[in-house]
Amino acid sequence: MSEHLNNPLCQLTIKNKIAYVALNRPQKLNALNMSMFYAIKKVIRRIKKDRSLRVVILHANGDDFCSGLDIKSVMQRPVNAFKLLWKWWPGNANLAQIVSVGWRQLKVPVVVCVHGRCWGGGLQIALGADFIYCTADASFSIMESRWGLIPDMGGTVSLREKVKLDNAMALAMTADEFSAQQALEFGIVSKICGDPVKEASFFAEQLKQKSPDALASIKKLYHKAWHKNDGSILAAETWLQWKIFLGNNRKIAVKKQLGKTDEDYR
Amino acid sequence: MSEHLNNPLCQLTIKNKIAYVALNRPQKLNALNMSMFYAIKKVIRRIKKDRSLRVVILHANGDDFCSGLDIKSVMQRPVNAFKLLWKWWPGNANLAQIVSVGWRQLKVPVVVCVHGRCWGGGLQIALGADFIYCTADASFSIMESRWGLIPDMGGTVSLREKVKLDNAMALAMTADEFSAQQALEFGIVSKICGDPVKEASFFAEQLKQKSPDALASIKKLYHKAWHKNDGSILAAETWLQWKIFLGNNRKIAVKKQLGKTDEDYR
Amino acid sequence: MSEHLNNPLCQLTIKNKIAYVALNRPQKLNALNMSMFYAIKKVIRRIKKDRSLRVVILHANGDDFCSGLDIKSVMQRPVNAFKLLWKWWPGNANLAQIVSVGWRQLKVPVVVCVHGRCWGGGLQIALGADFIYCTADASFSIMESRWGLIPDMGGTVSLREKVKLDNAMALAMTADEFSAQQALEFGIVSKICGDPVKEASFFAEQLKQKSPDALASIKKLYHKAWHKNDGSILAAETWLQWKIFLGNNRKIAVKKQLGKTDEDYR
Repeated sequence: MSEHLNNPLCQLTIKNKIAYVALNRPQKLNALNMSMFYAIKKVIRRIKKDRSLRVVILHANGDDFCSGLDIKSVMQRPVNAFKLLWKWWPGNANLAQIVSVGWRQLKVPVVVCVHGRCWGGGLQIALGADFIYCTADASFSIMESRWGLIPDMGGTVSLREKVKLDNAMALAMTADEFSAQQALEFGIVSKICGDPVKEASFFAEQLKQKSPDALASIKKLYHKAWHKNDGSILAAETWLQWKIFLGNNRKIAVKKQLGKTDEDYR
Repeated sequence: MSEHLNNPLCQLTIKNKIAYVALNRPQKLNALNMSMFYAIKKVIRRIKKDRSLRVVILHANGDDFCSGLDIKSVMQRPVNAFKLLWKWWPGNANLAQIVSVGWRQLKVPVVVCVHGRCWGGGLQIALGADFIYCTADASFSIMESRWGLIPDMGGTVSLREKVKLDNAMALAMTADEFSAQQALEFGIVSKICGDPVKEASFFAEQLKQKSPDALASIKKLYHKAWHKNDGSILAAETWLQWKIFLGNNRKIAVKKQLGKTDEDYR
Repeated sequence: MSEHLNNPLCQLTIKNKIAYVALNRPQKLNALNMSMFYAIKKVIRRIKKDRSLRVVILHANGDDFCSGLDIKSVMQRPVNAFKLLWKWWPGNANLAQIVSVGWRQLKVPVVVCVHGRCWGGGLQIALGADFIYCTADASFSIMESRWGLIPDMGGTVSLREKVKLDNAMALAMTADEFSAQQALEFGIVSKICGDPVKEASFFAEQLKQKSPDALASIKKLYHKAWHKNDGSILAAETWLQWKIFLGNNRKIAVKKQLGKTDEDYR
C-alpha cells in the first residue's frame, strides 16, 4: 500500500495512489543545493511515468518549507550556474525552472503544503503546484532581487494566473517578506489551514472520486485558457471532451455518480 | 412597445429596446434538452439581427435559473452528442458552446439574472453574459466532472477573465456547489441583489443613455484587450475610436451630455 | 542635488536620482490641452535618456490630479484630433496614448500619486504607471463614454492586468464616478495613503537599494509574462538573468546585501 523512493533530499512516499513528496534537508532549512535540484527533478520524472498516481502532495520536513537557494553551496563551483541555467531551446525549462514548472506539467493535480519560510527558490517551487495550502505562520518572499537577480525559476508562469501585476511587481522589486494572510489576499495562496498536509490529503481523496481523464483535461484546458484566444479555448474544450468520450473512465464516473459501482478508475 | 417571440422554451420579450429573454422549462428546473439548445440559439440569432435593441437581460422562469443538461432527455438518442459537439472548424462554437459564447458575440451588453440553481450547463450559459447578477440564495456549480466530463460549453472563455486559476481549477475538479457569496468572492458574479431583473433593468436604462457605438466598441476592445499583446490594444483603441468619430451617435451623445437633445441614438 | 526642467505645464524635478514629475495647470484642474500632451511626452523622453534616474514619481499640483481632456481647448481646432490620434503604425502609441504607455516603456519603476479628480484622460495617464497611490478622497472615472467615445489613451493596456473584465466593462460603459476605496477593491489602485508623494518617496528609497538591472528586468519580464505563453516566459527569465549575470550591478547588490559596500549602482 505504501512505497518509498529513498533519495535522502527529496523523499517520495506513495500511499493509496497519492504521491507524498517531502523536501528533506531540514538542518539547512531545506535550502536548495545542486543535489536537491537533481533529486526533485528525478522525483517529478518518476511521478510522470507512474500512471497509477492520482494526486501529488508536496511538503517539507523540518521547521521550514524551503529558505531558497543555498548560495554558498551552489556558488562554490561557478559551473553550477551553467548547470542551472543551461537549456537547449529558449522556451524549454532548465534545471532551475523544471523544479517549479515540472509540477505544472504533470497530468495530476498537485497540492503544495507550506509552513515556515518559503523564500526565493522555495516560493518558485511552490508556485509550480496547482494549489498552495499554508499554515498561518508561513512566511513568503520573492527574494531574488536582494542578490541583484530576478526570479528565474519558472514561478512567474503561475504568478500571472493569480496575482495582479502591481502587487507582483512590488513583491519582486522590494523582495519584502510577506505573511500567509497577505499571500492569501494577493492571491498566491489558495487556503490557510492548521494542518495543510491533512487538509491536502482530504482534498486528494475527494479528487480521487473523479475521473483522472476529467482532472487531467481540466488542468490542461485551464492552463491553456488563461493565456490563449477565444478560438483556441473553444477548440480545446471540444477536442478534450471527445477524447474523454472515447475513454472508459467517463463510464465509470457515471456509474460511480449513480452509486452503481465501487470500481477503480484505470 | 412590447413584442413577443413565442418559442415556448426560450421566450423573447422586447420592451423599450431591451430584450428580455426567459428560459422557460420551469417544471424541469429549466434543464437543457435539445429543443432548448436550439431555442436559445435562435433567440440569440434573432437579437443579433435587430439593430434597434440596446441591452439584453437573460433570466429564467420558475424556481431555478437552470440545473444543467437534461442528461436523460439528451442521451435518449446518442446522435445528440454529435449534434451538440459537431463543428466545422476547431475554433468555431458548436451548438453546446453557442448558447454561452453567443451572448458574448452580441454587440450589446448582456446581463444575466440568476436565482436558485445555476449548475453545469446553466452556469456555462450565464458565463457567456457580460454581467452576472444573482439573488443571495443562488447556488452555483461547475458540475461536469461529476459525470466524468469537462466543462465544454464555452464558459471557460469568460471564467478566465474573472477568476484566478487555482480557484477555477478547484471548482471544476471537485464539482462542488458554491453559494452566491462565494461566487462573488471568486469573481464570477458581478453583483448580489434582491431582485436581479429589476436591478438589471435599471442598469439597462442607464446604459441606454450612452451611445450604442461606444458600448459596442468597449465590449469589443475589452474582450480583445484581456488576451492580446500591448500593440494589438493600442491598434484597436485607435481604430475603434476613428470609426466612432465617423458615426452620428457620437454627436448625439455630446448633445445629450450637454442637455441639448432628447433625440434617440440610431 | 536637485535639477529642474521648467516646462510650465509638466515640471520635472530631479532629486537624489528620483524624477518628480508634476502636472501643472492647477487653475484648469490639470485638464489636458495640446501643450500639456506635448509637455508630458517631452518629459518622458527626457527621463528615458537619463540613465542615472532610478524611480519616477508622477503627481499633480493644485486640488486635482487631472480632470481629463480639456475638450473646449482641444476641439477649437479640428486638426488636433488628428494630431492626437495619428500614428505611423497600428501597434504604435499615438500622442494620446504615449502620455500613458510612455511611463510603462521606461525601464525604471513609476509611481503615480493621485488626489482629487482623476477622470478620463487623467485616469488613462495614471494607469500607465506601475503603481497607483492615492488619497482617500480621490475620485476616479473612465469618463469617455459620456461623450460617446471609448477610452483610447492606452490605459486599457494596464487595466487588463489588474481588474476583472466585468468590473472594467461596467466602469467604462456607465462612465460612473468611483471612490478611492472602490478603486482599491476593483484593483486599479495599489494603495490608499494620507500623503501619496511622501509614501512614494519612501518606496523609491527602498527600490534604490536594489540593482537597477534587476528592477528593469522584473518590469520587462512581468509586462511580458502577464500576456504571453509559458514558453516565452521561461525564455525571457533565462535570457534576462544571463544579461544580469554579465553586468556589474549584480556584484554590487551582493556586496550591499552582505553589508560590504556603500557603492552606488552604475
